Amino acid sequence: MALSKPSINLLIVFLFTLFLLSFSSLSSAHPELKTKKQYKPRKNLVLYFHDIIYNGQNKHNATSAIVAAPEGANLTILAGEFHFGNIAVFDDPITLDNNLHSKPVGRAQGFYIYDTKNTYTAWLGFTFVLNSTDHQGTINFIGADPLMQKTRDISVVGGTGDFFMHRGVATIMTDAFEGEVYFRLRVDIKFYECW
Amino acid sequence: MALSKPSINLLIVFLFTLFLLSFSSLSSAHPELKTKKQYKPRKNLVLYFHDIIYNGQNKHNATSAIVAAPEGANLTILAGEFHFGNIAVFDDPITLDNNLHSKPVGRAQGFYIYDTKNTYTAWLGFTFVLNSTDHQGTINFIGADPLMQKTRDISVVGGTGDFFMHRGVATIMTDAFEGEVYFRLRVDIKFYECW
Amino acid sequence: MALSKPSINLLIVFLFTLFLLSFSSLSSAHPELKTKKQYKPRKNLVLYFHDIIYNGQNKHNATSAIVAAPEGANLTILAGEFHFGNIAVFDDPITLDNNLHSKPVGRAQGFYIYDTKNTYTAWLGFTFVLNSTDHQGTINFIGADPLMQKTRDISVVGGTGDFFMHRGVATIMTDAFEGEVYFRLRVDIKFYECW
Repeated sequence: MALSKPSINLLIVFLFTLFLLSFSSLSSAHPELKTKKQYKPRKNLVLYFHDIIYNGQNKHNATSAIVAAPEGANLTILAGEFHFGNIAVFDDPITLDNNLHSKPVGRAQGFYIYDTKNTYTAWLGFTFVLNSTDHQGTINFIGADPLMQKTRDISVVGGTGDFFMHRGVATIMTDAFEGEVYFRLRVDIKFYECW
Repeated sequence: MALSKPSINLLIVFLFTLFLLSFSSLSSAHPELKTKKQYKPRKNLVLYFHDIIYNGQNKHNATSAIVAAPEGANLTILAGEFHFGNIAVFDDPITLDNNLHSKPVGRAQGFYIYDTKNTYTAWLGFTFVLNSTDHQGTINFIGADPLMQKTRDISVVGGTGDFFMHRGVATIMTDAFEGEVYFRLRVDIKFYECW
Repeated sequence: MALSKPSINLLIVFLFTLFLLSFSSLSSAHPELKTKKQYKPRKNLVLYFHDIIYNGQNKHNATSAIVAAPEGANLTILAGEFHFGNIAVFDDPITLDNNLHSKPVGRAQGFYIYDTKNTYTAWLGFTFVLNSTDHQGTINFIGADPLMQKTRDISVVGGTGDFFMHRGVATIMTDAFEGEVYFRLRVDIKFYECW
């Protein structure tokens, strides 16, 4: 049976509709079909935080303290074996640039655990509590921090306020350090899921 | 060339289809185009949990204990300087109302770290393990808890069972406290991403 | 008024399009309308990790150590009351099979906290740092681990590298244990959100 011209037109509309539907479906429901290179952060934020660990002599400056240590170690000297087993609690100032004395835009609060015996690696759980004219809200992070690598990626697992429900990846760099007392981290926060 | 009536009809169907597609695409694939005010939780749950911290004399009642402290502090008295450096581990009953003696619907399990020297702030990592006729599953939380503020927002970063893959924000209020031994938290859990 | 045949055809195309649209909408934009059973992981990974806890006599083998304990307990013997209040830090090898001596494909790094007084329950925060020909990247986990249950579900809250922005659920099983020194966990990681 030969199709009439209107029927052919109908068929074209129908097929084109199907084509559009599959395209829509691809772009919204199956992000994993894209290659990674296509993702661009929807928001980007570069911040610094400054950690001054208590060593028994810097009570007034210190922004962090060792609170747990393995057997045989104490709470004023980081443990041997690459500090394996030390837990430090911190409340560090966050600045927009790499100057410890710049006006803070918030506080980095949480803990790190040195968790490796044969190199410097920490496990991080912390929150950026931002309170400035530009940003009000919190950003929550967890992840592994292999300190000897130039850049390390951790997860942004949630946020509140201006960062409501955000997710992403944060790239950490050790921007500077002085002995085992001061270190400054540069955090490049890339939000890929924003609400 | 003038269009025949069937062709015009086809055009209408096609354009209407396109219109529906763009609407569908907007609502599903680009949540960031909405303003924050438009978000309503898909599920809401208000629960209470009750923390009784071990102080050396309440072994039988206590639901939490100090397990780490900064140099010079001990494990039965919360440390000076706003408890900075204390880690407490807890397994607290969860109730539907604000009565400690109501039948528990689950347990709040995890830890808090006092992480600030000049005010009361804690960092929380914990799980609600719910086991009742209404809810079976777990909800995982992390975030900063500035205790002196009336309400504090933390992140719901995942869930299992009835809360499979859920994400959201939980608003915490200190509902009551007695000295430094008992406190009761009201948690208003708002799930924005449900599966 | 009777409809002409082309008009009826148009109507059929239109209704079928609507039908497809609602289907597409259901599958992509409103996952909560599905029942839980319909979800299949987009990726699945089964891995093992091996924890050897330091007991004062196994310094060279040990991959984890007690670093915090409640009042009255020490750092070489797990505390009484179901180890309530112990925090252990670990850096455990990950293998593809259940053999401790297989070539590791990465390290499981983080901590567990025994948080219950009347049964064995731990709270976990850790990262799989994978570094093999098959997988490069990190997977971040948190959740409650009621050890006496055959299987326990925790949350995969984020990832980096090959696991960029992934979320999911991991089912943990105690695959073997020897006294209180060695235990092996089987982790069945199901990624439901991939990018």
